[in-house]
Amino acid sequence: MSDARFELYYWPGIPGRGEFVRLVLEEAGADWVDVGLQSGGKAVSDMLGKAPVPAYAPPLLKVGDVVISQAPNICSYLGERFGLVPSDEASRLHARQFQLTVADAVAEAHDTHHPVAAMKYYDEQKAEAKRRAEDFRTQRIPKFLGYFERVLKANPQGGGKFLLGRDFSYPELALYQWVEGLLYAFPNAMRRVAPDVPGVMALRQRVAERPRIAAYKKSPRAQPFNPQGIFRHYPELDDPNAT
Amino acid sequence: MSDARFELYYWPGIPGRGEFVRLVLEEAGADWVDVGLQSGGKAVSDMLGKAPVPAYAPPLLKVGDVVISQAPNICSYLGERFGLVPSDEASRLHARQFQLTVADAVAEAHDTHHPVAAMKYYDEQKAEAKRRAEDFRTQRIPKFLGYFERVLKANPQGGGKFLLGRDFSYPELALYQWVEGLLYAFPNAMRRVAPDVPGVMALRQRVAERPRIAAYKKSPRAQPFNPQGIFRHYPELDDPNAT
Repeated sequence: MSDARFELYYWPGIPGRGEFVRLVLEEAGADWVDVGLQSGGKAVSDMLGKAPVPAYAPPLLKVGDVVISQAPNICSYLGERFGLVPSDEASRLHARQFQLTVADAVAEAHDTHHPVAAMKYYDEQKAEAKRRAEDFRTQRIPKFLGYFERVLKANPQGGGKFLLGRDFSYPELALYQWVEGLLYAFPNAMRRVAPDVPGVMALRQRVAERPRIAAYKKSPRAQPFNPQGIFRHYPELDDPNAT
Repeated sequence: MSDARFELYYWPGIPGRGEFVRLVLEEAGADWVDVGLQSGGKAVSDMLGKAPVPAYAPPLLKVGDVVISQAPNICSYLGERFGLVPSDEASRLHARQFQLTVADAVAEAHDTHHPVAAMKYYDEQKAEAKRRAEDFRTQRIPKFLGYFERVLKANPQGGGKFLLGRDFSYPELALYQWVEGLLYAFPNAMRRVAPDVPGVMALRQRVAERPRIAAYKKSPRAQPFNPQGIFRHYPELDDPNAT
């Protein structure tokens, strides 16, 4: 199959939840292969069917004979293995806490366009989506971003720049990707909210400028946001255009 | 405050996400105190405001000077610390994967009655709830339970009885609690689905009979399911009564 040390299995065509894993692999400089992107979706569903410990859904990461799933689980495993978090237990637990909070926020972003049924079309749940998206824009985005703004301010060593300790750590990649997704899906709402969370917006900019992340995002390996993904830009779900 | 080694902070009055943590503490025989239940909700909101690393939401666990949050994070920390999972890395990663999959399923159970906005009343989203609950009952419950049925069957050492290896492990507490919640909230749907997932239903029974879990559930410390919690029994959201 592949000599790469890490094999990622995720549906090709969208950044999706796989992107959170890709960013950690890229930032770590890991030897990895994006199996879904290189070999197509069938390789992903095949692995879903044959993983020794079944996975509920992609992304899956294969390391030797072990296949693990759940994006936050994979990200924390990789982040810890590659030293993208301080090695003391409290830091690791807090990093996992941040990663899980972003994962919750990602699920809520998904449900803005699929508030009724993940397997039904958006067109079948547009009315419900409009109500849920309004709540998401006005209540949930400010609450989640405000939370991370507080985390930045509460870190005594970080100078307002880092979630944990005195340096970059892997959950910043997740927060960056979530903000990127929001900027794509809800540009009007984000123009309104961003001034209230300058620390988070600056963190997003610093992560974007990290050499390995910038190089990856410019590469053909990076798949752009699009209307099949978790983050979707439907103008009717965003704030109305400013007049 | 308390001499207990572990302090749990969670809203009193509902099992909620705190219950997943309580079950691990009880099964572990840990020295712990349920601060919210003993001292009231203000103690919980106070801790939310002063945790050195901010938490997005309860449950919070205080251990010495460290306060961590996110229920699956806390459960995995305790499960690993108390030896409720094999110590090899793959087992730990798979246990976290199971715990996170149950957490996703818990969030979906919540959204059946709050598909639009977590902070609005059920009465304000009954129409949407009816549609989402139907999808949850007919698609999601069978998919999640069927997944864990496959996990039980795929474990070569477990004889169909254990999620991991040849013995009980902490994610079984989460799966048990999720099934308990479904039996409370969707009794008709569960009568229909249960025969297809005999392994999961038997696991739920075995966990209920574990001495520490049985003793806890009979104690005044255990709070029953009720219509303020994550799992709510609204007959209109369940399958119609069998004729």
